[in-house]
Amino acid sequence: MKKIDTSKKFLIIGLGLLGGCYAKALKKKGFSVAAITREQADIDYAVAEGIIDKGSVTPDRELIEEADIMVFALYPHTFVEWIREYGELIKEGCVLTDVTGVKGCIVYEIQSMLKPGVEFIAAHPMAGREVSGVRNSDESIFHGANYIVVPTDKNTFGAIELCKELGQLLGFARVSVLNPEKHDEMIAFLSQLTHCIAVSLMCANDNPGLVFYTGDSFRDLTRIANINDEMWSELFLANREALLKEMEKYRNTFDKLYNCVKNNDREEMRSMMRISTERRGEFNKKNRE
Amino acid sequence: MKKIDTSKKFLIIGLGLLGGCYAKALKKKGFSVAAITREQADIDYAVAEGIIDKGSVTPDRELIEEADIMVFALYPHTFVEWIREYGELIKEGCVLTDVTGVKGCIVYEIQSMLKPGVEFIAAHPMAGREVSGVRNSDESIFHGANYIVVPTDKNTFGAIELCKELGQLLGFARVSVLNPEKHDEMIAFLSQLTHCIAVSLMCANDNPGLVFYTGDSFRDLTRIANINDEMWSELFLANREALLKEMEKYRNTFDKLYNCVKNNDREEMRSMMRISTERRGEFNKKNRE
Repeated sequence: MKKIDTSKKFLIIGLGLLGGCYAKALKKKGFSVAAITREQADIDYAVAEGIIDKGSVTPDRELIEEADIMVFALYPHTFVEWIREYGELIKEGCVLTDVTGVKGCIVYEIQSMLKPGVEFIAAHPMAGREVSGVRNSDESIFHGANYIVVPTDKNTFGAIELCKELGQLLGFARVSVLNPEKHDEMIAFLSQLTHCIAVSLMCANDNPGLVFYTGDSFRDLTRIANINDEMWSELFLANREALLKEMEKYRNTFDKLYNCVKNNDREEMRSMMRISTERRGEFNKKNRE
Repeated sequence: MKKIDTSKKFLIIGLGLLGGCYAKALKKKGFSVAAITREQADIDYAVAEGIIDKGSVTPDRELIEEADIMVFALYPHTFVEWIREYGELIKEGCVLTDVTGVKGCIVYEIQSMLKPGVEFIAAHPMAGREVSGVRNSDESIFHGANYIVVPTDKNTFGAIELCKELGQLLGFARVSVLNPEKHDEMIAFLSQLTHCIAVSLMCANDNPGLVFYTGDSFRDLTRIANINDEMWSELFLANREALLKEMEKYRNTFDKLYNCVKNNDREEMRSMMRISTERRGEFNKKNRE
C-alpha cells in the first residue's frame, strides 16, 4: 500500500467546523487543500488564514477534476444530492471519504451512484464542538479522539488502508473499523442517545434559577444540549430504527433504577451503581492509553 | 456582623475529599484547623502536609470544646448519630455547618437536638470529584462553583451571614440561599437525577468495545457514572419523594422526544432542540459571570 504522499490533492466539500479541521490538519502536514462550500465569506476567510489554498462556492469543474482525495463534510441528504448532481465530474482514481454521522442510509446509495474507478470509503471522525463554522475549526479536537472507518463489501483493501492512514494523518488516537450496520447501532447509543438525554434534561425543567445552584454534573450532562436542530433532527431520523432501540434499552434501565428508589431497594440500587462504576473505570483506563 | 477573623478555630468532622478541601482553603486563609476523622493515616497525612494543625480519630473533648466553627462532612445518618452522641460536648456560641447533599431529612432533626447557644446553619457546596479521600482534596474545585446556604426559621441572621461569608472565604463564585425544601427539590433535579441518568446509561449497554468508538459526549455524560454507591444510595433514599418527582418529569420529557423519533415528527423534535439550546445558552452566559 502506497502511503498518502504530499503530491495528493485534497478537496473538501463543505467547509464547516469539521471540514475546516480536516483542512487545517492536512495543510499542516504539507498537503494541497481546496474547498467547495456555500459561502464566499468562508472561502475568503479560509484562504486568508492559510486553511485552504483555494476554493469555490460553485462545483468548480477544475477543482473537482484535479482532486485525488475528496472529503465530504455535508448533511446526509446534501451529500447524496451532491453526488447525484456532480458525481460525473469526479476523475477516475479519486477516493471519496466523508464525516457523516450516519452510514447505512447513505453509504450503499452513494457507492451505487459512482462511476467505475471512483471509490467511496466512509469514515466517522468521533469529534466535534458545540459551535459550528470554519471559524471555530481546531484540529486539536482530533487528538485523543476515535476515528471509525466504515467499509462495505464493495470497498477495496487499498481504499480501506488509505482511509485508516488518513485517520492517523489527521491526528486521531485510535482508528477502528466497523460495518455500516454496527456503526449505526454504536452511534445510536454513544452519540444520538446522549444528545436525546441532554435535550430531554434541559427541556424537563424551566426554572430560570437553576444556573445559580448547579454543580458540574449538570453542566457536563447538558454541554451537548446546545444542539444544531437542523443537523441532529436529520441524523436522528436517518438512523431512526437503531436510535429507537437504544432509547428503549436506556429507558428500561432508567425505569429499573426508578423502581429501586420507589421501592427503597437499596441493594439493587447499589448493585447498579457498582456495575456503572466498574464499566466507567475500564473506560477511563482505556482512554488514557 | 463581625467578619470571620483568623482567631476563630475550625474543627472539621470527617476528613474526606470535601473536608480536606475546606481544611486546605481555610489554612491558606490563615485559620487554625483541626479535624476528627476515622483513620489515623488520614490525620497523619493531613498534619504532615499542613492541611490541618492537629486531629484525632476519637471525639476528642478538647478539640470539640475549643472549636468556634464546626464543619460536618459526614454521610447524613452518621451526621445525625454524631450529634446525638457527642452534641453535648459542643461549647456555647459554636456555629455548626455542613456539606451534606440533602437537607430536609437532617436539618430540622439536628437543630432540635442541639443545646441552647449552639446553632446549626446548613450549607451545600456544589462541588465534588469522582475520587474520594483527603489525599484527593483540592480546594480549587470551589472556584467558579456554587455554594448554597440552607437556613430554617430557627436560624439567626448572624449565623446565616457567617455561613455566606464562609462560602466566600472558601472561594466559591456564587453564594445563594434556599430553604431546605427548595434545596432538596433543586438538588433532586440538578445532582441526583443527573447521577441516575449517568448510571442508567452506563448500565444500559454491556458492549466492551464502546470505548474504541466513543466521542466526548458519552464521556461527558458518564463521568459521574463512577459513583460511590454507599453514599449516593443513601442520598437518593434520603430525598426519595423529590427525586421520584424529578425522575418522572424527566422521563415524560424523554418519552416525548422518543415519540417524535417514532412518529417522524421532525418539527416537534426541532422545537425541543431549540428550547434546549436556548436554555443551555443562558446557562453558558451565567457561567462566565
